[in-house]
Amino acid sequence: VEPKEILMTRPKALIFDVFGTLVDWRSGVARDARDLLLPLGFAGDWGAFADDWRAQYQPAMEEVRAGRIGFCKLDVLHRRNLDIVLAAHGFDAPEDVRARLVKAWHRLDAWPDVTPALVRLRGAFRLAPCSNGHIALMVALARRNRFPWDAICGAELARDYKPKAVVYQASASAFDCRPDEVMMVAAHSDDLEAARAAGLMTAHIARPNEHGPGKGEAAPRGSFDMAAADLGDLARQLGC
Amino acid sequence: VEPKEILMTRPKALIFDVFGTLVDWRSGVARDARDLLLPLGFAGDWGAFADDWRAQYQPAMEEVRAGRIGFCKLDVLHRRNLDIVLAAHGFDAPEDVRARLVKAWHRLDAWPDVTPALVRLRGAFRLAPCSNGHIALMVALARRNRFPWDAICGAELARDYKPKAVVYQASASAFDCRPDEVMMVAAHSDDLEAARAAGLMTAHIARPNEHGPGKGEAAPRGSFDMAAADLGDLARQLGC
Repeated sequence: VEPKEILMTRPKALIFDVFGTLVDWRSGVARDARDLLLPLGFAGDWGAFADDWRAQYQPAMEEVRAGRIGFCKLDVLHRRNLDIVLAAHGFDAPEDVRARLVKAWHRLDAWPDVTPALVRLRGAFRLAPCSNGHIALMVALARRNRFPWDAICGAELARDYKPKAVVYQASASAFDCRPDEVMMVAAHSDDLEAARAAGLMTAHIARPNEHGPGKGEAAPRGSFDMAAADLGDLARQLGC
Repeated sequence: VEPKEILMTRPKALIFDVFGTLVDWRSGVARDARDLLLPLGFAGDWGAFADDWRAQYQPAMEEVRAGRIGFCKLDVLHRRNLDIVLAAHGFDAPEDVRARLVKAWHRLDAWPDVTPALVRLRGAFRLAPCSNGHIALMVALARRNRFPWDAICGAELARDYKPKAVVYQASASAFDCRPDEVMMVAAHSDDLEAARAAGLMTAHIARPNEHGPGKGEAAPRGSFDMAAADLGDLARQLGC
């Protein structure tokens, strides 16, 4: 392979899935659920509570993707899903606790490899999240974890939810790029399959513990342009 | 006045006009026009060339605001306007030079007070541009000048151009804020009048030399919440 051929396929921008790929949603949501619900006298497996909340995620977004409801920010869907999960667990929390618990998704911590790798990557590529989380939520996570974004792309910009092609394509367009000039980075093979179908380059990040110990994608389930053990490994493979 | 009353009117986010308020478009465009057109044998007053190009700005956007054409990125309007101005000056530049000259608007330098003040302000407020420039253009200016944005708001997010109210309101909404929780910062009183009418707080920045020596708004033309000599003065007045 000629060096030039490698360079010609080098992306101009990288866009990232966030929940699971960059931040550990399960630990953060479990922590805040415990902190807010335990004082009310509720007890439970807080990791399982986080899993149950997360399990409502795709069905809620499908209402928007299918056009049955208009686009709304992820906080709105998280709140609707929280009410379902609280009822399923037999927890009757007051309104103010529910409102604060929805914001648990704004207070998630990054996996330890993420921020240093993003800082290295930013020297060579333009960077943005391409998440189903809305802009204010992405800003909160970026401030908490010092993510050095150039812009906030994703669902709110496209007014639709992944894995619809328009979300990936609108994110590339925001950088004045064709889809094939941008690489989608995610720990979820279904997200990457959709990005590839939308014309983007793809990179898989292993997150073997996303859904709890040993429960996560340790390897890609499909054929993508790159596969990395973590974000530091991706930065190294990209020469950063 | 009680201290609490002051704090209650403190903005949660600041959004900024960019061309003229943060960056010196006239010097930058004149510099690149000279660098690209002088080698082709054209001579002229490059500041006047920049002024003439900028004079086409509002009429071009009015086509979008009035709904006569769909939303398009500012690069598209800048290119159309460049063709008009080149013809008016009797310059017949080839396609590649025109394409590079349009990107002069991506290579503008900040007024010297801007970046240090934004860094100070970022400790207390979420910050975004609210410009008619598109996202990729804002990213280029941010990288060149190290603007520490939380997100890129403005025309491309709203799919319309200032001074339409939706552009200010969509920028506030991106931060999960009501319009009255956000302050628009600009060196142009007409921009601030529109932001105020859209429900935002307003701050005027003096840029007495924006259109050349002594040609710019040295003071606000209207009644706004704050008026500052430059961005450092605004940061100081806001306690940063």
